[in-house]
Amino acid sequence: MTRIAVIPGDGVGAEVMGPTLRLLQTMNVSVGLGLVFDSFDFGAERYLKTGVALPAGQLETFREDYDAILLGAVGDARIPDGAHARELLLGLRFGLDLYINFRPCRLYAESLCPLKGKHAEQIDFVVFRENTEGQYNGIGGFLKSQTGDEVAISTEVNTRKGVERLVRAAFAWARRKGKRRVALGDKSNAIPAHQLWRRVFQEVAAEYPELEARHLYVDNLALQLVQRPESFEVIVTTNLFGDILTDLGAALVGGLGLGASANLNPDSTPLFEPVHGSAPDLVGQGRVNPMAMFLTAGLMLEELGHGAQAARLERAVARAILQGQVTPDLGGSLSTTEVTEAVLGHLEA
Amino acid sequence: MTRIAVIPGDGVGAEVMGPTLRLLQTMNVSVGLGLVFDSFDFGAERYLKTGVALPAGQLETFREDYDAILLGAVGDARIPDGAHARELLLGLRFGLDLYINFRPCRLYAESLCPLKGKHAEQIDFVVFRENTEGQYNGIGGFLKSQTGDEVAISTEVNTRKGVERLVRAAFAWARRKGKRRVALGDKSNAIPAHQLWRRVFQEVAAEYPELEARHLYVDNLALQLVQRPESFEVIVTTNLFGDILTDLGAALVGGLGLGASANLNPDSTPLFEPVHGSAPDLVGQGRVNPMAMFLTAGLMLEELGHGAQAARLERAVARAILQGQVTPDLGGSLSTTEVTEAVLGHLEA
Ligand SMILES: CC(C)[C@H](C(=O)O)[C@@H](O)C(=O)O
Ligand SMILES: CC(C)[C@H](C(=O)O)[C@@H](O)C(=O)O
Repeated sequence: MTRIAVIPGDGVGAEVMGPTLRLLQTMNVSVGLGLVFDSFDFGAERYLKTGVALPAGQLETFREDYDAILLGAVGDARIPDGAHARELLLGLRFGLDLYINFRPCRLYAESLCPLKGKHAEQIDFVVFRENTEGQYNGIGGFLKSQTGDEVAISTEVNTRKGVERLVRAAFAWARRKGKRRVALGDKSNAIPAHQLWRRVFQEVAAEYPELEARHLYVDNLALQLVQRPESFEVIVTTNLFGDILTDLGAALVGGLGLGASANLNPDSTPLFEPVHGSAPDLVGQGRVNPMAMFLTAGLMLEELGHGAQAARLERAVARAILQGQVTPDLGGSLSTTEVTEAVLGHLEA
Repeated sequence: MTRIAVIPGDGVGAEVMGPTLRLLQTMNVSVGLGLVFDSFDFGAERYLKTGVALPAGQLETFREDYDAILLGAVGDARIPDGAHARELLLGLRFGLDLYINFRPCRLYAESLCPLKGKHAEQIDFVVFRENTEGQYNGIGGFLKSQTGDEVAISTEVNTRKGVERLVRAAFAWARRKGKRRVALGDKSNAIPAHQLWRRVFQEVAAEYPELEARHLYVDNLALQLVQRPESFEVIVTTNLFGDILTDLGAALVGGLGLGASANLNPDSTPLFEPVHGSAPDLVGQGRVNPMAMFLTAGLMLEELGHGAQAARLERAVARAILQGQVTPDLGGSLSTTEVTEAVLGHLEA
C-alpha cells in the first residue's frame, strides 16, 4: 500500500486536484497501483485561523507515514507577501530535506511554443534546481527598519554538501536517461561565492566523461534558453536561479498550465506540486488547466516506481494536447472537466 | 569641450570601438558636438602585467576631468572567473556611484524577434537596473574552504536610499517620456528582505498617479517577458535580477549584438558600455556586430544633452537593420566595416 498525502491548498488547487485524483484512481483500479489518499486542509483558511501554515509534528507524520505528498497550489491575496505559501512550501521542501527540485520543460506541440520555428520535442530539458539552501533560507532582515537609513539584508548560503548532492543527482540522472549534456548556471563572475558551484560541477563532471559539461553565467543562460533552447538537456542551478529559469522554461513550452515539478530526496518523502500558483483570477470558472497537475502526478508515479504508468499518463496528456483538447490558456475552449475526460479517454485507449 | 574617456578593453572591444569613434567623429565634425576623446588601455593585458584592473587615482581622474566614459568590452579567458572584468566594471559602477543601469530593449525589425507574431516596436521597454548594491558587493566568502564542509556565503544588501533613488529615477523617466506603466520585479515572497523594494515602489508610485504601477515576482516577470513583452514599458529591479532580465530582454529583440547600456548618476561621470562581453570567439574575423556599441554611443549623446543627434544615430542604425545591412548574428552577411559604412550613409541621409 502506498500512502499519498493530498494537499489541495488554495485557489485553483482544489480544481486541479479533483481531476488529478480521478485520473489516479482510474489507474489505481485498472492497474492496481495500491495508492491510498489522505487529504490535508493546509492553506490560507487554516493559516488565517491558526497563524500556522504547517502544524507542529506534521513533518514527522509525512516522513514516517506517507510515501508522497501531492500539493495543488498555495497563495491567497489576504495574506501579504505570500507568507503562508512560503511557510508551507519552504517548510516542506526544507523540513523534508527535498534537495532536488526537478522541473521538466518539454514542448508537446509546436503551436504551444511562442518561439518561431521550433518543432515539438525540440525543446526538452530538465532543470535540477537546488531546493534546500541558497537564498531561500530567510537569513537576513532589516536594519533601521522603516527609516530613511533602512538597510535590507539577505544572505545566500550554499554548502559543499548541498551543492554536491544536487550536482551528482543531475549527472546521475543524465547518465541514466542517456542524455548528452549537462549545463551549470551560476553567477560566479559577479558573486565570487558561486565559484563553489563551478568547482563542484567540474569535479563531478570529470566522473562523467561521456557527458558534455558546460558552464554558463545565468544571464547568458537565460538568453540562450530563448535563442537556442534545443541546446539544453539538463540544467543544474541554484535555488533562486532555478526559480527564474523554470518559469522562463515554462513560458517556452506553453506556460504555467503545463509546468510540473517534483521535490525529491531518495531518503525522504517527496513532494509533488505544479509550478503554477493558486491563480485567484481563475477560481470558480471551471476553466483552469489541470494538465500541470496531471504531469506532476506523472512525476509522482515515476518516483514511486510506476514508470510505465507515468509514461502512459504523460502520453495521454500529450495526445489531448495534440488533438487540441485543451483549456483557453493553451488556445482551446474546453473546460477543466472536458480536458479531464479527454485525458481519461486517451489513458484508456 | 566635452571630454570622453575611451576604454576599448578586450576581445572585440576594439573592433566595435573603432567604428563607433568613426561615427562619433563624423557627427562631431558635421554638427560640432565638441567631443574630444582620450584612450585608456585598461583590460586584460594591463591586468596580467600589473595585477590591477583600475589604477589608483583613476576614479578621481574620471570624475573630475571627464564628462563620460565609453567602454567596449572586458573579459579574457586567461583570467579565471572574470576577475578583471568584475574589478573594472564594478569598480567603475560602484566607484563612480552610477546607481542607474539603464538598458533599453527595442525591437527594430520583426525578423529579429525570436517570438511568433510580434511586430516591430511592439517590444519597447527599458530596464532600470540597480547598479551600486544588491548582491554585487563582494560581501561573503568561503568557510572551511575546499573541504567537504565548505560553506559559501554571499550577502545581498539593499538600502532605502539606494532603492529609492533608483525607483525615483525610473518613475521620473517614465513621466518625462510619457510612458504609461512601471513594473517592479523582486522576489519578496521568498526573500523577505526584498519587501523593502515593494514598500519603496508603492510609496513612489503614489506620487505618480498617472502611471500604472505593477508588482511582479521576478520568476513571473521572466515568464511574462516571453509571453507578453508588449505589456512592459519600464521595469525597475535589483542589480542581479536586472542582469538576468536584460540578457533575456536582449534575446527578445535580436541578441547581444544590439544591447545598449548606460550607467548613470546625474552627479557623476556616466559610463556607457554595450551589454555584450568580449566575445573571444569572434575576435579578428571582422564580423562582430558594432550596433550595440553604436546604440550605446547614442545613449551617451542623449545623456550629454545631444538628444537630436542621439535620435539621428538610432534612426541610422534602425534603417540599416530594416534594409538588412547587418552582420551574421542578425542574419546578414556584412562585415563590421560594411555595417559601419551603411550606418554612416544613413546618418548623412
Ligand atoms: C561581466 C558581469 C560582471 C556583468 C554584470 O553581471 O553586471 C555583465 O553581465 C553585465 O550585465 O554588464
Ligand atoms: C511561491 C514561491 C515561494 C515558490 C518559489 O519561489 O520557489 C514558487 O515560485 C515556485 O517556483 O515554486
